[in-house]
Amino acid sequence: MADEVPFEFLHMELVAHIHNTSTKEENDTCIAKLESLGYRVGLSLIERFTKDCSRFKDELDMMKFICKDFWNLVYKKQIDNLRTNHQGVYVLQDNKFRFLTQLSNGKQYMEAAPKYLAFPCGLIRGALCSLGINCIVTAEVSAMPACKFQIQIQRL
Amino acid sequence: MADEVPFEFLHMELVAHIHNTSTKEENDTCIAKLESLGYRVGLSLIERFTKDCSRFKDELDMMKFICKDFWNLVYKKQIDNLRTNHQGVYVLQDNKFRFLTQLSNGKQYMEAAPKYLAFPCGLIRGALCSLGINCIVTAEVSAMPACKFQIQIQRL
Repeated sequence: MADEVPFEFLHMELVAHIHNTSTKEENDTCIAKLESLGYRVGLSLIERFTKDCSRFKDELDMMKFICKDFWNLVYKKQIDNLRTNHQGVYVLQDNKFRFLTQLSNGKQYMEAAPKYLAFPCGLIRGALCSLGINCIVTAEVSAMPACKFQIQIQRL
Repeated sequence: MADEVPFEFLHMELVAHIHNTSTKEENDTCIAKLESLGYRVGLSLIERFTKDCSRFKDELDMMKFICKDFWNLVYKKQIDNLRTNHQGVYVLQDNKFRFLTQLSNGKQYMEAAPKYLAFPCGLIRGALCSLGINCIVTAEVSAMPACKFQIQIQRL
């Protein structure tokens, strides 16, 4: 069995737990909680993971690191496609995102997807923050289990 | 970096989250919540993991499976010692339990340990339940990061 499964199942139960302990009106709060949990996990992971890394050349270099090494560490696969407009927007596409592979592909399940994307958005934000990049991360699903994460760099 | 780290960090944040969203009086509730989350993760993992397994010979055979394959899947190491009184009590000793290695070893941190043991107790209970064994699982720490899990089989 693949190595990422305990992590995946723990995440699924976490999502269920956070939603079960909230009322329906608090959906945004659940998303925020999951995002913030992801953020903290992202921070800690990068802290530990880059301990023996050489310095990054530039922003794009860090993004490549997130797409390859970091994604591989967490999801045991790489991001399939990285694009940028060279003006502070990066789009990371995962054609088979682990947290969505357990959901059926169908329009009616689309609305369940955001629940499973809040944590990974926070994870990316935390990881980048740890590398000194402030950003906003959002996710978009057009056909499960493919998923696009959009990173908008916040310049001071 | 070791493979189990994302799982470990996610668990740490889960413990922090559950305790932060509760008042001090609700400590028992937090433990129960974490135990129940562990239970559900244990159930799902065994369901997936034993899909292609041959049948287990007996109870001891299942315990060995938990100590070796299951522990290795979740914690990337095996249980160091398994003992039984042959009357329905099993003691699983992990000399370097992953969820405790991040805590300092010292008497003053001892009281923090139960927070990190509720989930793994539930995990074992869920896994065994999935194999058809009803039990009560408790954990005991005498010197961190070593930990003993006691399994008491519940016969009907």
